[in-house]
Amino acid sequence: MLNPADDAFLAALAGRLPEGTLRPADPRHLTEPRGRWQGTGGTVALPRSTAEVSTLLAACNAARVGVVPWGGGTGLVGGQLLPSGPAPLILSLERMTATRGLYPVEAVLSVEAGAILADVQRQAEAAGFLFPLSLASEGSARIGGLLATNAGGLNVLRYGNARDLVLGVEAVLADGSILHGLKRLRKDNTGYDLRHLLIGSEGTLGIITAASLRLFPRPAATVTALLVTPSPDTALRLLSLARKRLPGMISAFELIHRTGFDFLAEAMPEIACPFPHIPEWSILVELGLPAGFEAESLMASLYAEADDAALVTDGVIAASGQQSAALWSIRESIPEANRRIGSVSSHDISLPLSAIPDFIAQAPAALGRIDRFRINCFGHLGDGNLHYNVFPERGRSRADHDHQRDAVKACIHDLVDSMGGSVSAEHGIGRLKVKDLETYADPAKLSAMRAIKRALDPNGILNPGAVLRESGI
Amino acid sequence: MLNPADDAFLAALAGRLPEGTLRPADPRHLTEPRGRWQGTGGTVALPRSTAEVSTLLAACNAARVGVVPWGGGTGLVGGQLLPSGPAPLILSLERMTATRGLYPVEAVLSVEAGAILADVQRQAEAAGFLFPLSLASEGSARIGGLLATNAGGLNVLRYGNARDLVLGVEAVLADGSILHGLKRLRKDNTGYDLRHLLIGSEGTLGIITAASLRLFPRPAATVTALLVTPSPDTALRLLSLARKRLPGMISAFELIHRTGFDFLAEAMPEIACPFPHIPEWSILVELGLPAGFEAESLMASLYAEADDAALVTDGVIAASGQQSAALWSIRESIPEANRRIGSVSSHDISLPLSAIPDFIAQAPAALGRIDRFRINCFGHLGDGNLHYNVFPERGRSRADHDHQRDAVKACIHDLVDSMGGSVSAEHGIGRLKVKDLETYADPAKLSAMRAIKRALDPNGILNPGAVLRESGI
Repeated sequence: MLNPADDAFLAALAGRLPEGTLRPADPRHLTEPRGRWQGTGGTVALPRSTAEVSTLLAACNAARVGVVPWGGGTGLVGGQLLPSGPAPLILSLERMTATRGLYPVEAVLSVEAGAILADVQRQAEAAGFLFPLSLASEGSARIGGLLATNAGGLNVLRYGNARDLVLGVEAVLADGSILHGLKRLRKDNTGYDLRHLLIGSEGTLGIITAASLRLFPRPAATVTALLVTPSPDTALRLLSLARKRLPGMISAFELIHRTGFDFLAEAMPEIACPFPHIPEWSILVELGLPAGFEAESLMASLYAEADDAALVTDGVIAASGQQSAALWSIRESIPEANRRIGSVSSHDISLPLSAIPDFIAQAPAALGRIDRFRINCFGHLGDGNLHYNVFPERGRSRADHDHQRDAVKACIHDLVDSMGGSVSAEHGIGRLKVKDLETYADPAKLSAMRAIKRALDPNGILNPGAVLRESGI
Repeated sequence: MLNPADDAFLAALAGRLPEGTLRPADPRHLTEPRGRWQGTGGTVALPRSTAEVSTLLAACNAARVGVVPWGGGTGLVGGQLLPSGPAPLILSLERMTATRGLYPVEAVLSVEAGAILADVQRQAEAAGFLFPLSLASEGSARIGGLLATNAGGLNVLRYGNARDLVLGVEAVLADGSILHGLKRLRKDNTGYDLRHLLIGSEGTLGIITAASLRLFPRPAATVTALLVTPSPDTALRLLSLARKRLPGMISAFELIHRTGFDFLAEAMPEIACPFPHIPEWSILVELGLPAGFEAESLMASLYAEADDAALVTDGVIAASGQQSAALWSIRESIPEANRRIGSVSSHDISLPLSAIPDFIAQAPAALGRIDRFRINCFGHLGDGNLHYNVFPERGRSRADHDHQRDAVKACIHDLVDSMGGSVSAEHGIGRLKVKDLETYADPAKLSAMRAIKRALDPNGILNPGAVLRESGI
């Protein structure tokens, strides 16, 4: 059982830290983007060093006070706040943004966990490199939170998830001990890989304080195309063809359904469809190539070969940066159009690639047993990651379906699970999906997770109730 | 404290398994390639299914009998046998070699852990793909052991370590529970990443029974060159240049020192040096490219640009498969030449790339304080992984240095550690390096590893004494 971060505890703690480390929590520390929850805890700790993080955690552990790590506050599953229970100490690394080292020969950048992603991207660019992690919230999301949640985003197909971009992490464990793991090694087989255990654990096993990040060469030329394909099956065969012809050069492979264009026409008519008729299925493809390679001609060759194999029926290849931006604006405006239409339920799912056509074929009928809906299915097809979002029909509102939301979620998640998929592809578990995890995770996995949590955080102080229910530990 | 796998235990266990599952251990189960240790345990279990593995582990756990997992027996650090203590049950998955599924659209192959690497490579090739894990023992090493040790090998620079080639694993935990994690997902953020925890844990946290492996397009054309470079520093700048110009296309970047050529001339004179004078430092570079790309001209362009930057002073580009094989035979014969010369001590180390020139500059002087040696420094420079091997001078034998071996190892490992490197880059800890791990690992890491071991294997039955000392758990 945890204790609150009460006045006596905070006063004693303040005496062991530089003045100004403990402050009243801001409203931003107690809210989240979807407005679903309000956080508890009146005090935020703003350490400036790993040693101070260590002092904080050791004190919280000794007093059994919960610690809620707050990164950039952009998470969508409520992992960044604690809605009830004894008041926790909120921990933000926003004053730990230093660069520990830039190593151009190694293509490595070591930064503290409070660094904002966009700043890291800029620093990499200034050194002539690309740091490929990229997502909508990059202007405020911080490295610590991005790694704690193993963020996905736009460039996973080519460069992997957040965990794949990390050579080493420094972290503070629940008892305050410091894990000095800021290695910059490509090969290191000395014991268990704690880096990958901490990444994706959502702050429940330790607090990442710094990371060594892999950098990549910047593509010298990119070319974007929007290709019309007959079906999800041909879309996957187009992906196979592209990966065979241009391995490691495909930066994006994004699926767009007719509903996406319909929603844009309805809610954001300034975004034009480049085809005379709205295609049932289309794919936004981007190639990124080094200097000396003919990006446009490679895309044209890919198109020609796909055409011969009946994998595409139409397409536009951007001939300028402006045309490329126009194609991207279609894909990037779909989430905003979705917001304006108002979904009944949205789902961040992934599937084995070969199961996707069956899923797309079966899900509407399954949902149809609940009610009539519009479905906008789009997303990172190359990663098997669909945003499968369910909307009211025209003339009805999301409120009309409030009573069906749980049934809709269960319908989609059951089908995903039966096909070997994941009910949280990139957003994590947080607090929103704790029950989903209990429902769908393998029992041996859940049991092992609980054993690891007990072993590394026996008092349960780290992000209590996130990922694993407190009573379930 | 563990109990021996005695007759009563074995008789009771045999009754719960198909006839022939328990057999007398072969000599191969009790030896290892370097002949350093002799294993104990008179019985090997040869299950044919994951359910049988589960039965075996549950019984061993209940009776507190140690289990030593034996893959292909090729490990170099003694992880595959138990030299002393109560007789364990040896567990070999050599009868679990089935393919669970081949998914061409996904570029995924799911196989049981007893599959031999060369067979998996062939199966991938027959389906038009490459499974890039490749190392000297691929004809006998099995997938389970390769993942348990997170094997490295030849293609790490381009495709990553073994762990990077795995989408999911099925495993049996110490209590016999089955972790159904044979997922084929590119994105899955549902809880802690047990896959990466099991991979590299050397059979001490669970027994991997099957894995879903990533396949890649086969390069349509390869080109090999041996380039002479002035120094380790210019070698690294050449690597940077090559990665910038040809990202994702470099299959090998192997360092060869003059000593390697000297040893070949001394021990294997049939392997010729292609240069009129033996170069101090040379690099074997291989590019692999898809159809439609001009491999030779890209290599020639790289050479020209490297020449302009004074990063190379000479070089040969293979003009045929035969010439390429001749260049590779230099690199691949060095380990055999080393064996014939007879090393005092060999070291499987890795370093941050930018520390390599300093290490190569400082290590000879440090060793010189012990005695006079010859040094053969070669290996996977692109991965920061050097095989830094120490030999007697001509006219002296390794026996002359027996009394200095520990001092030589400590000298190299201390220097590597002081530069942020690893004392086991690809071979793991096994039993050989348990003390090294205790000496060089971060204390918080060791402590967390022990806590995890206790949590997942509270009776300590899984590969007792490997990685972590039994008494240290």
